[in-house]
Amino acid sequence: MDYKIKSRIWIESKYGVFLGEGRIKLLKAIAKTGSLSKAASTLGMSYKKAWNLLDSMNKSTQKPLVITTTGGKGGGGANLTKHGQHIIETFDKINQKCWEFLDNELKKISL
Amino acid sequence: MDYKIKSRIWIESKYGVFLGEGRIKLLKAIAKTGSLSKAASTLGMSYKKAWNLLDSMNKSTQKPLVITTTGGKGGGGANLTKHGQHIIETFDKINQKCWEFLDNELKKISL
Repeated sequence: MDYKIKSRIWIESKYGVFLGEGRIKLLKAIAKTGSLSKAASTLGMSYKKAWNLLDSMNKSTQKPLVITTTGGKGGGGANLTKHGQHIIETFDKINQKCWEFLDNELKKISL
Repeated sequence: MDYKIKSRIWIESKYGVFLGEGRIKLLKAIAKTGSLSKAASTLGMSYKKAWNLLDSMNKSTQKPLVITTTGGKGGGGANLTKHGQHIIETFDKINQKCWEFLDNELKKISL
């Protein structure tokens, strides 16, 4: 029989969960849409939930991940900082390496 | 800030999930209690749920994980097979190795 091994990773600080799959999806959606409310809507998530996730991430990081602007021509928006982009890339890289590691482990065993 | 990286792994076959944390806990509880109903009760799980989990595991394995006996002196029971024991050890080992791998990856990055 053929088996596949799957995993889910998340990162915690003393304040609780910092990063996980859903939070990374939110950051990516913010990068794509340039707006927290649009990002939330893309993910089928309430604005409040998205705001809370972002707020929770901010508690666990010293550098901001997202810069929000209010008012102005476009009615305000949200954009990833360079650090936010770095965080996404770092999380994705570890996730990818974890999958490769586990695929390799699966090859070594018999189930 | 100090971060911890956590993970959850599971193994799937073409029939769906084969092994995960909950299923391994159930197998361990069966090994400990010698009974499916006692194992379920230890885990605060209904007998039906435990039975379904075991049934689902059996669909994804060619060798039985548990041998059940009915009636007799002790009123029947459930015992892990050698293969069931092997499956627990294998899963736990991969899980442990995955944690070590991720801890090590975390050391290499800045968040």
